[in-house]
Amino acid sequence: MNRPQPVEKMIEIIKRLPGVGPKMAERLSYHILKMSQSEADKLIHAIQVAKKVMKYCSNCYNFSEQDPCKICSDMTRDHRTLCVVETPQDLIAVSKVKEYHGLYFVLGNALSPLDAIGPEDIRINELIKRLENASISEVIIATDTDSKGEMTAVYIAKVVKTLNIKVTRLGYGLPVGGDIEYADEVTISRAIVGRQEM
Amino acid sequence: MNRPQPVEKMIEIIKRLPGVGPKMAERLSYHILKMSQSEADKLIHAIQVAKKVMKYCSNCYNFSEQDPCKICSDMTRDHRTLCVVETPQDLIAVSKVKEYHGLYFVLGNALSPLDAIGPEDIRINELIKRLENASISEVIIATDTDSKGEMTAVYIAKVVKTLNIKVTRLGYGLPVGGDIEYADEVTISRAIVGRQEM
Repeated sequence: MNRPQPVEKMIEIIKRLPGVGPKMAERLSYHILKMSQSEADKLIHAIQVAKKVMKYCSNCYNFSEQDPCKICSDMTRDHRTLCVVETPQDLIAVSKVKEYHGLYFVLGNALSPLDAIGPEDIRINELIKRLENASISEVIIATDTDSKGEMTAVYIAKVVKTLNIKVTRLGYGLPVGGDIEYADEVTISRAIVGRQEM
Repeated sequence: MNRPQPVEKMIEIIKRLPGVGPKMAERLSYHILKMSQSEADKLIHAIQVAKKVMKYCSNCYNFSEQDPCKICSDMTRDHRTLCVVETPQDLIAVSKVKEYHGLYFVLGNALSPLDAIGPEDIRINELIKRLENASISEVIIATDTDSKGEMTAVYIAKVVKTLNIKVTRLGYGLPVGGDIEYADEVTISRAIVGRQEM
């Protein structure tokens, strides 16, 4: 017996979500079928509301209920420093740090030649436009420290430097609370290079 | 910065789905935000259609577009044999086997005292009613072979026997295509007990 067509269709669409394999999609679909109608309505409503209300901020490309977003329109912040991140989730992580009071720019992606993600997919033109129209004096690159993030950082740095703007990258080193025994060689070597006087 | 409330709400609701942790819920939510509106509409539509169209068959409790379902109303099948499974997914798995031509009954759950899932949560009353009203001569128990499934099998067998109906359980042994070297002791011991003449 095959699955009924409406179930098959739901599984097929849920399977396209990131990190969801065929088995997981099946499990989620049957769970949704088992849900009460009111629970399912809540799920649908939450998605519909979020899709309707959340837009891209035309300055920083974070998701926001207003444009420009709260951060971009907050005049108490330092409007001369721009932190470049890959995703809105990364922005949330950096924004929890009290040391940073500047603005943000969300690339939306990291360069990845193997996945055919090139410069045109990481909002490089939007970033250049932003830097040309605003008086930014420092760009802090906070992309991931994996190979895609590194490649992206190098590329962004090259572009930003041509605009005569200072570029920095988040410092490398040992994560706080970490165990040196388990740190990898590359991280330790970066931590030695970036050692600080006590 | 906290996440905007509509995003927070979507994450909170998606987090309740089985096998979805907080990070996964965040990832799925931001993916949905990034989706085009038409893609998001497809997702919502697939869920809405499936929820609207798929109902429980009042005979076997599988999800179906009609009641009784196609299997229960198929008079070419053997209506004297009933295969009891935990979930609709298990039913699909068994139904792919050509050797079985009987009917099904979906418990919806397995007994699990630690999760407070007792006999009233596995449709035991519905099963008894079904057995009393139909002329079933054999019940084949096809619950999982983990501890919950075993416990459920033992319980169902006890109940079915009081109705003077033959009860069988799927045979234990080595999975086909398996490597004896990697089989666990319990499985090998069951395979020896269930050995067959060649």
